[in-house]
Amino acid sequence: MTPRARLEAAIAAAAAADAAAAGAARRALDGKTKPRGSLGRLEELACRIAGIRASAAPGRLEPAVVVAAADHGVAVEGVSAYPQEVTAQMLGTFAGGGAAVCVLARQAGARLIVVDVGVREPIDHPAVLDRRIRAGTANIAREPAMTRGEAEEALAAGIELADGLVDDGVGVIALGEMGIANTTAASALTAVLLDADPAAVCGRGTGIDDQRLSHKIAVVRRALGRTPVDPTDPVGAIAAVGGLEIAALAGVTLGAGARRTPVLVDGFITAAAALAATRLCPSCGDALIAAHRSPEPGHGAILAALGLEPLLDLRLRLGEGTGATLALPLIAAALAVLSEMATFDEAGVTDAGA
Amino acid sequence: MTPRARLEAAIAAAAAADAAAAGAARRALDGKTKPRGSLGRLEELACRIAGIRASAAPGRLEPAVVVAAADHGVAVEGVSAYPQEVTAQMLGTFAGGGAAVCVLARQAGARLIVVDVGVREPIDHPAVLDRRIRAGTANIAREPAMTRGEAEEALAAGIELADGLVDDGVGVIALGEMGIANTTAASALTAVLLDADPAAVCGRGTGIDDQRLSHKIAVVRRALGRTPVDPTDPVGAIAAVGGLEIAALAGVTLGAGARRTPVLVDGFITAAAALAATRLCPSCGDALIAAHRSPEPGHGAILAALGLEPLLDLRLRLGEGTGATLALPLIAAALAVLSEMATFDEAGVTDAGA
Repeated sequence: MTPRARLEAAIAAAAAADAAAAGAARRALDGKTKPRGSLGRLEELACRIAGIRASAAPGRLEPAVVVAAADHGVAVEGVSAYPQEVTAQMLGTFAGGGAAVCVLARQAGARLIVVDVGVREPIDHPAVLDRRIRAGTANIAREPAMTRGEAEEALAAGIELADGLVDDGVGVIALGEMGIANTTAASALTAVLLDADPAAVCGRGTGIDDQRLSHKIAVVRRALGRTPVDPTDPVGAIAAVGGLEIAALAGVTLGAGARRTPVLVDGFITAAAALAATRLCPSCGDALIAAHRSPEPGHGAILAALGLEPLLDLRLRLGEGTGATLALPLIAAALAVLSEMATFDEAGVTDAGA
Repeated sequence: MTPRARLEAAIAAAAAADAAAAGAARRALDGKTKPRGSLGRLEELACRIAGIRASAAPGRLEPAVVVAAADHGVAVEGVSAYPQEVTAQMLGTFAGGGAAVCVLARQAGARLIVVDVGVREPIDHPAVLDRRIRAGTANIAREPAMTRGEAEEALAAGIELADGLVDDGVGVIALGEMGIANTTAASALTAVLLDADPAAVCGRGTGIDDQRLSHKIAVVRRALGRTPVDPTDPVGAIAAVGGLEIAALAGVTLGAGARRTPVLVDGFITAAAALAATRLCPSCGDALIAAHRSPEPGHGAILAALGLEPLLDLRLRLGEGTGATLALPLIAAALAVLSEMATFDEAGVTDAGA
């Protein structure tokens, strides 16, 4: 299958949330031994997942964390607090199991899939999946990040990855990423897709100062000013100003959506990927669950556009999928409440009603 | 040991957080492969627990959830949406494993201890610990909830329970409660201890309407107006307007604090208990971790007084310890980050510094 055919197939397969299943889950929760709605967002989460799965009783979902890594040519503009070689170094740390997301994935009982979509210097490690499209993007301040064909390849790689995980029994996918300077690419892509001013969607990433933030905004302006980018063409926008890992994660989102598999969105980068996916296929937005509120202003703009409210706000600003992974126990808890709690009838408890 | 002697021993044994251990944990986290502080509240949590445990490497902590149940005479005033017999019915559901907190404790891998401190009609079940002081409190709108001696007995029962759990290997205790009308008692106790107006600390509990809320405030005013309650005498305040499960949970907090064991505070009722414990022994406040933000206004007032910020805000309004139990995976995650993450040196990753 060509990358474009895979993309079109995923979009065609995507299904909106099943309102009947969500409604049945709601009724089941209303019969449990608790005041109605008193488990708040846990109940909403259970209903949302029931809708995504098209099942009033989704049971336990096997979790996976997908961390996509790639380099960004725009790093040469000095937009990040870290040098570009950190991407490959961190890929090694992911492979070795010592990175934050590795620790948190183990805690959550989730398998961790680390995929290299285009780190500048590849590392050879059995724990890193090689889905390299090219050795990092070009510098978006001067030229397109990648070709349209490469964007399609990266999207297709993500779709195929999600598809394989679902075939292998995975029922919920948490998104993660690594790529020095990728908040700059995510800011540019978000500015295009939301028609927002760069200043409104650029933040401090992993910790840049005021001066570097002004510079970052100027760099994004340059990227957007090079040539007109059509906001109604998400693949074109990714090719123009996006990132390889962002494209792959948009693909994972599309692939998961096509298989009725909930997707946990982490911070800003993964949200930009999810946003691009919903622009390619609006109904896959139904599969999204926002895990953690990022301090990045662009993240807030995307959440508002997608109508999502994060489950957690722990002031994380690391990325990697750490926020999404930390929300996995909440998914498990919500589904356990739906499947395991006693009803008023079973328990012989007096129900005060709504 | 008399109840009073046990209370005095716990207060004498309480130790403040160990700043050196917390500082050592901070330095260890700063050396991990991530921008400093980028795991936000997870890092703060790890440092706080290091301080409580007086250990820079607390390791994994075995979790327990203690749900204390009791009845409240003030229920006859019609302050709750539920009839009083629901307390005993829910105790049965806790024992049977079908209540929300049972499901969530299983999810979190925590043992669940259900203790009857004074439900009106006792239930005979091996899964319910009998620490009954009396068959529910008296109606605080008309008379003291209990005698001073009974308050001391309930406090001592909680201390003994915490002590036994720690002896048995438990390293973190989540507080939970059940007791129809117990938000009324918690409101009255909070109003006394914080010198607050009843209207500022009364809320909708598990879901009463405006009219019943006004009535509840009036009932609390009557309880406080019966006879002067000395806010500097927490045991006297508990006896005057508190609850048996509130007293027992204050005891659990004191007992845990005396053993350097972190205590996860759930919603309003458990926060009122924790507040009373800190008034008996200020240093045990160091052992407190706020798990979930309750919509009850009195909860916000207590958090502000204790300087605590909850980890979660999932719009839960059930109690039982559900919020505290949902935060247990965050505790485990924070400690795993501290013990398992690679350092920059180990991983060969370039550190950009602070």
